[in-house]
Amino acid sequence: MADINRNYLDLQGSYLFSAIAKKVREYSETHDSRRIIRLGIGDVTLPLCHAVTEALHKAVDEMGNAATFRGYAPDLGYDFLRNAIAENDFKARGCDISADEIFVSDGAKSDSGNIQEIFGPDNIVAVCDPVYPVYVDSNIMAGRHGKYNDATGTFSRFVYLPCDAGNGFCPDLPKEKADIIYLCYPNNPTGAAITKAELKKWVDYANSTGAVIIYDAAYEAYITEEGIPHTIYEIEGARECAIELHSFSKNAGFTGLRLGYTVVPKDLKRGGTELRSLWARRHGTKYNGAPYIVQRAGEAVYSPEGKRQVAEQVAFYLNNAKYIRGNLEAAGFTVYGGVNSPYIWLKTPGNLSSWEFFDELLSKAQIVGTPGSGFGAHGEGYFRLTAFGKYEDAVEAVSRIKETAF
Amino acid sequence: MADINRNYLDLQGSYLFSAIAKKVREYSETHDSRRIIRLGIGDVTLPLCHAVTEALHKAVDEMGNAATFRGYAPDLGYDFLRNAIAENDFKARGCDISADEIFVSDGAKSDSGNIQEIFGPDNIVAVCDPVYPVYVDSNIMAGRHGKYNDATGTFSRFVYLPCDAGNGFCPDLPKEKADIIYLCYPNNPTGAAITKAELKKWVDYANSTGAVIIYDAAYEAYITEEGIPHTIYEIEGARECAIELHSFSKNAGFTGLRLGYTVVPKDLKRGGTELRSLWARRHGTKYNGAPYIVQRAGEAVYSPEGKRQVAEQVAFYLNNAKYIRGNLEAAGFTVYGGVNSPYIWLKTPGNLSSWEFFDELLSKAQIVGTPGSGFGAHGEGYFRLTAFGKYEDAVEAVSRIKETAF
Repeated sequence: MADINRNYLDLQGSYLFSAIAKKVREYSETHDSRRIIRLGIGDVTLPLCHAVTEALHKAVDEMGNAATFRGYAPDLGYDFLRNAIAENDFKARGCDISADEIFVSDGAKSDSGNIQEIFGPDNIVAVCDPVYPVYVDSNIMAGRHGKYNDATGTFSRFVYLPCDAGNGFCPDLPKEKADIIYLCYPNNPTGAAITKAELKKWVDYANSTGAVIIYDAAYEAYITEEGIPHTIYEIEGARECAIELHSFSKNAGFTGLRLGYTVVPKDLKRGGTELRSLWARRHGTKYNGAPYIVQRAGEAVYSPEGKRQVAEQVAFYLNNAKYIRGNLEAAGFTVYGGVNSPYIWLKTPGNLSSWEFFDELLSKAQIVGTPGSGFGAHGEGYFRLTAFGKYEDAVEAVSRIKETAF
Repeated sequence: MADINRNYLDLQGSYLFSAIAKKVREYSETHDSRRIIRLGIGDVTLPLCHAVTEALHKAVDEMGNAATFRGYAPDLGYDFLRNAIAENDFKARGCDISADEIFVSDGAKSDSGNIQEIFGPDNIVAVCDPVYPVYVDSNIMAGRHGKYNDATGTFSRFVYLPCDAGNGFCPDLPKEKADIIYLCYPNNPTGAAITKAELKKWVDYANSTGAVIIYDAAYEAYITEEGIPHTIYEIEGARECAIELHSFSKNAGFTGLRLGYTVVPKDLKRGGTELRSLWARRHGTKYNGAPYIVQRAGEAVYSPEGKRQVAEQVAFYLNNAKYIRGNLEAAGFTVYGGVNSPYIWLKTPGNLSSWEFFDELLSKAQIVGTPGSGFGAHGEGYFRLTAFGKYEDAVEAVSRIKETAF
């Protein structure tokens, strides 16, 4: 008799964004309201830029021609893309990362879910609280969670690193043992950035304890301030302790095109084994490379034209963020994020719980956001809005919120 | 201190096709030989058909236009594709599979590697021998393998189902307990097909023991004979015991475009849980959908024009297979497969081992094939050639083999 993976039964509720989508669908089906403005899920709305669609068309033509057709891609990514990444995202920033330390994939979500596989079952996992749910759920599926505590909404074997206004949403070093530490900066969901000095503490901690940091840099394109690291490899010692995840979704709008990459430096070893060789083996066994046409689209993001067009898109979303943040602040809300991030993180008004505010915002203002508690116990009393919508929607949403009594 | 997943250290050698690529690269770099003909890896060579490139261009234009841009795809696949699959691959064959039992992905390799995750660690895994290495390696990574036996090249916790000329490359039912059974028909690597009567035995066995069959139907488009099932759901009772994997790689040449799907019927439950809900949760947590443009390309495969063009490609490869099989047989080789399959499976001549024949074929005839022993102990003494090359290459390869003394 086949037995299921019983860890799945310990997963709490369904995946956050599926739960939100269901609530919104039910509301729409039962209410004849004005248009719903979606500032919930972190999905982009601007179309792919011209440099990218041009590269896609060209690559499709190649795939339709016998002389230029390409079958299986190299498991780890085409050299043309790995070289462009190494040059632009690392060498240009003075970081020592080479092309053969870069693994191209179908996106940072897949990589952030799969990366835990190369670690043993007994590692203690530390996550920020609130946190992007994939880090937690993928480790529950792998059985690293322990027992669920209903009262606190936490699992006994995870180390939770509280992030709140008190510490500027950058957690203190753990007091408990932690072997694998997930950090995401600029942060999803809080929109907070981390300074080089603060990140250095984590690298030093990991190098002193042997912990490995999984650093999610999916939002680095939104950094506007000086002194904020774009990659953890700007920090001395990171090559010995950190894996970094990157996305093309938020900088270049590839949410529906799927492309990302993960960096595993050669200097990162545990138990005498290069983690890079384990990740390479996983890629080679369970993955067959990102589509050629999508890798060409990724390459185009690094062309002079692509860089300019992509920067315009990021600036557009950052302007939305500034508008939402500034106006909600002026209206009396307590607001974080939105400066080095497309996410605005606000205190719910009137001591409403996160889901109560979600329901009120949907029913009174027809706006969809994301309840902070969906990201962890310490997200309770907070709420995430994204700047990925249209400018008119940001204006309309702010106007609706201002005229609503919560 | 982070600890690695020590199961990875039990993986044998590197992934077969990486090992072959390395040998060929080394040979090319040290020999100034005539052109190498590659009949090794199962990669297609014909360009994407017109219906597919047309759909890709159209979808790229949609992605470049604000009014038609699409962000995150539904995790489980777009309805337009799931409906086309349900209609054409199942309903048209009288099989009761609905769109919401179909999960679109980036390919059958990923799915065949990932599917084991929804099962517990203690299940006993049965695989054919020889076998597609991903089934084995992904279960080693998950720790279901036990101890390696150097003398036999087998792991203590796997059940190996010998497939050889004696049983027509269709294994006997296992005598030992087996909880998860991987079957692939038409078979990779042997090119053998399974009859409905033979497959019915496996479905009945699984339903009587509670085992689950992972049925890999990646090569079903190559079936030319009557009475050979295109899907396991042609067999009564399969909805209660079987998961099926499909690929767009071999029928439509999507090896470099990446698209596949997995069927998990609602009637498939173990321990009171629908396996479908577990796979949906895995998809939702660790995957973010196949690219919109690629899903549109997949839809085009089911259009009248797409069906015709894709059938022409399959017929072209089958003609290569027929040529290679017929001529090698005439030249005195013992040859299997190549009738319902793009793979030709031959006995190595003169009692050469599989890797000895690989080396001889490369050094004497400059042809690359795949050593049977790379697929398992019972593949020793066999060798796989694929029909995915150019027709001229099939002719040239046969001519070279005929004039070579092994």
